[in-house]
Amino acid sequence: MNTHATLGILGGMGPAAGIDLCRKIVDQHPADRDQDHIPFILYSVPQIPDRTEALLRDGASPLDGMMDGVHALEQSGAGCIAIACNTAHAWLEALRTRTHLPVLDVVDAVAGELSRCVAPGSPIALMATEGTHHANVYRPRLEALGYHFVSAAEPLAQQALVNEGIRLTKAGEIRRGGEALAMAMEPLLAAGAQRIILGCTEIPVALAMCETPLARFGLDASAALARACIAWSLAHEGHESHASPTHQ
Amino acid sequence: MNTHATLGILGGMGPAAGIDLCRKIVDQHPADRDQDHIPFILYSVPQIPDRTEALLRDGASPLDGMMDGVHALEQSGAGCIAIACNTAHAWLEALRTRTHLPVLDVVDAVAGELSRCVAPGSPIALMATEGTHHANVYRPRLEALGYHFVSAAEPLAQQALVNEGIRLTKAGEIRRGGEALAMAMEPLLAAGAQRIILGCTEIPVALAMCETPLARFGLDASAALARACIAWSLAHEGHESHASPTHQ
Repeated sequence: MNTHATLGILGGMGPAAGIDLCRKIVDQHPADRDQDHIPFILYSVPQIPDRTEALLRDGASPLDGMMDGVHALEQSGAGCIAIACNTAHAWLEALRTRTHLPVLDVVDAVAGELSRCVAPGSPIALMATEGTHHANVYRPRLEALGYHFVSAAEPLAQQALVNEGIRLTKAGEIRRGGEALAMAMEPLLAAGAQRIILGCTEIPVALAMCETPLARFGLDASAALARACIAWSLAHEGHESHASPTHQ
Repeated sequence: MNTHATLGILGGMGPAAGIDLCRKIVDQHPADRDQDHIPFILYSVPQIPDRTEALLRDGASPLDGMMDGVHALEQSGAGCIAIACNTAHAWLEALRTRTHLPVLDVVDAVAGELSRCVAPGSPIALMATEGTHHANVYRPRLEALGYHFVSAAEPLAQQALVNEGIRLTKAGEIRRGGEALAMAMEPLLAAGAQRIILGCTEIPVALAMCETPLARFGLDASAALARACIAWSLAHEGHESHASPTHQ
């Protein structure tokens, strides 16, 4: 029998974020038995140069390391690639020219979700790594759709909190990371943002741990990408399965 | 530079359990930055016939489906295989004859942990699928080490609770699953078990959600396997990494 198509998740950037995307894929596609869940392969080899270092400070490029992952996923039978790192989307087009597989785009996924929760022209904000801001992963494309980005009154201090929250989360101090990130949301809401794109895969992981009431103003880019992953898998036929439909 | 060796996780049986094993690998090996985390690849294609059906009721064998995963992991650069499903360990020796990669054994991992928390000869118990019980995955090997297995006074009723807890967890009703599994621990403790091996990967996932005080009597087989995975990765050299040691 044919089954849903297998997702290839390029993870490890960081490891918790890749796992979080997979968990959201499983949680958001409920199934009564194992065999009805969405198939995926998670490549989590985090020995990839830091994306923000590469974008801001001429650090080593992560592209070769990401392509190792893409090739491994191609060979494993994945039918598409999803990148569990917003900053790594700065290399999305470079990846697309180097693989025959479709590569999903977190910005498309976020744009789709935004259109369902705020009107075009609404003030929004982005919490992300400095690399994601610098590489303009989100802003020009969402501005082209009519959204208006607001900034904190003290942008350097606000970004310092975001950086610290992400760093703590990657280092396993997830609750403290969440507290820093919740504090970083406040000046964006004060500036009038109706939604804050949680545009780094570590951010929703950390906010979930600290149970802040501000979380409801966040738009979780990982959850949006997970829904795009599920939609892709359900829309495409997978390989021959060994699961017999007559056995549970 | 060389890095830690890459783990191949055979998951999808069920998907939540494979993700849980990966999360435990990341959580139990803290690292300050992405690049110092343990590399792994999770193959989570759950279209594999049910293991307990195959063992108890002549259902289709999961071996071909598992071997698809093993071959994918071999080709992706994994250096060993860990199986994120206790029941699937009934096919451990069959897998070992079909791959050149070492395959870790959850029973070895559990035996090592048991030796650190109870004396040989101590009464212990096993919560697992009927397939794991029937295939004698744990009992003969732990009895050979001197442990004494106790059963519930009403074993059928107790196993019914375990089955229901696992089924609910696989279907995403994780809290309700955890409540059933916590109830299933009580008659084993009443029978004198000093530790209960949580010998199905869904069980610790579910118990963690319901915050039962009985959880401290459980020995989490997934956590034990995660520690064995980390030890294996740290003891073996990985492939050439693209992460430069001069950049964070």
